[in-house]
Amino acid sequence: MNIKKESIDKDQVKKYFTNIQHSIVSTIELIDGKNFLHDTWQRKEGGGGTTCIMENGNIFERAGIGFSNVIGSKLPKAATDAHPETAGRKWEAMGVSLVLHPKNPFIPTVHMNIRFFIASKKGYSDIWWFGGGMDLTPYYPFIEDVIHFHQTIKNSLEPFGKELYIKFKKQCDDYFYLQHREEPRGVGGIFFDDYSEKNFNHSFNLTKSVGDNFLRAYSPILLKRKAIEYSDRHRNFQLYRRSRYVEFNLLQDRGTLFGIQSKGRVESILMSMPPLVKWSYEWTLAVEGSIVRHQNISSI
Amino acid sequence: MNIKKESIDKDQVKKYFTNIQHSIVSTIELIDGKNFLHDTWQRKEGGGGTTCIMENGNIFERAGIGFSNVIGSKLPKAATDAHPETAGRKWEAMGVSLVLHPKNPFIPTVHMNIRFFIASKKGYSDIWWFGGGMDLTPYYPFIEDVIHFHQTIKNSLEPFGKELYIKFKKQCDDYFYLQHREEPRGVGGIFFDDYSEKNFNHSFNLTKSVGDNFLRAYSPILLKRKAIEYSDRHRNFQLYRRSRYVEFNLLQDRGTLFGIQSKGRVESILMSMPPLVKWSYEWTLAVEGSIVRHQNISSI
Repeated sequence: MNIKKESIDKDQVKKYFTNIQHSIVSTIELIDGKNFLHDTWQRKEGGGGTTCIMENGNIFERAGIGFSNVIGSKLPKAATDAHPETAGRKWEAMGVSLVLHPKNPFIPTVHMNIRFFIASKKGYSDIWWFGGGMDLTPYYPFIEDVIHFHQTIKNSLEPFGKELYIKFKKQCDDYFYLQHREEPRGVGGIFFDDYSEKNFNHSFNLTKSVGDNFLRAYSPILLKRKAIEYSDRHRNFQLYRRSRYVEFNLLQDRGTLFGIQSKGRVESILMSMPPLVKWSYEWTLAVEGSIVRHQNISSI
Repeated sequence: MNIKKESIDKDQVKKYFTNIQHSIVSTIELIDGKNFLHDTWQRKEGGGGTTCIMENGNIFERAGIGFSNVIGSKLPKAATDAHPETAGRKWEAMGVSLVLHPKNPFIPTVHMNIRFFIASKKGYSDIWWFGGGMDLTPYYPFIEDVIHFHQTIKNSLEPFGKELYIKFKKQCDDYFYLQHREEPRGVGGIFFDDYSEKNFNHSFNLTKSVGDNFLRAYSPILLKRKAIEYSDRHRNFQLYRRSRYVEFNLLQDRGTLFGIQSKGRVESILMSMPPLVKWSYEWTLAVEGSIVRHQNISSI
């Protein structure tokens, strides 16, 4: 982490974050036909947020798009262990986070997050960084959708550095990997953290580009797959695979665990949970008369 | 933890554990009418187990009753931190663990576990202890069922010490408490660990009494409630409440987290997961025209 001397404009970041939240909410409402519930909340220790949630929509079985802006006078130990230079500083974090769970198993689940962190101390320069990313979790993947998703993200990062897409893609593959299942969560995307390269404007513009390109990356897939007919068999497979999403978020996801452990607002943190989930023992797929254990089907 | 000088009979413990597993499996099969799948597995690092699982039974939507006996040459750091006297020792752990998820929302979910741990070193006395417990998670609690469950457990512990039930009940209330929800998992039961009081026979007999009394504590409730008719409303509430079971097991349960982190057999560890689960945002109950937030209904 570099300690940046130049000034930052956190009001601009906040304005962008709330704008992009509303813009994504509006677009998803237009596509789905149902409106989100807007739930604004305060945090006792400082700050608050607005959780936008849709349940039992026409396309989305559950969709959460949250903005939060929380402040604190002292960072938790977990944070200062990772960033000792922030010890003893006031901190502020803001971000937009979304998870969309469509009902149709042929539409992938998607996650996107952008966040900004500042640790400040009177008489010293601010320490700040951006983070974020997005990743796609299909139940029945189409290779052209995977290519479109990754290509859109790659294009969005290109102006900020040729190497960024490869770097952030690898970080995504590493982060969204279920250790206990030895399998990736989905088909990846990008993940970045502690990003404060060049200057504030460069880092902010990169983060904005990720936010601005989310709908470009996801909505063509959504529109293309939403009318595919599905049977109980497809739906069952989706419900079974959703259990992996739950396992990842509750066992591994740093954002979820940090939120839970730091007594964050539980219903806003767990808006990422799928609406309906199945667990079944040693799920197997019968392929041409032989049984294929699930862990092997990724190679089919 | 006392370091016990007298000899232990681990074959006897293993024999009891496998017998009680089979006896509970047989009784549940008789009541349900469907048989368990018996899945025997080996662990690369040493030992193995048998997972008995029933899915889509007549009464049980998912029921897992597992026996495992695992050995290792070196304890993980987490274990030796809690028990420094075991550092550098070979270890062996065996246990029976069960979770039964009935389909009818008027029958409670139940969990029972008994376990034995030994750390040994040539030329030194064995270090050993027993642990275990059981707890009941109703969706629609009946006070007489709660009393019967607790009374049966209390009776089973009485011969081993008048104070044990109160002590183990409190440990259960402390252990099965969802920190982030600020609510208990269910109506409790007992929980004990690191138990090596008096001598091996005393501690083993106490553990056997817990195992032997499981069916006495649970099956009358099961038989009494299995014919109650339920509607979609009851079923939906059960599916929603099951999400708390998932949250507890994946966020807090030490056995689950130790198993996952130590690369245990995932499907056997996660047999405790409910078969079908719902998450919904800020679930509320309409009572006589007013909205009651879920966290407040425990007092209704």
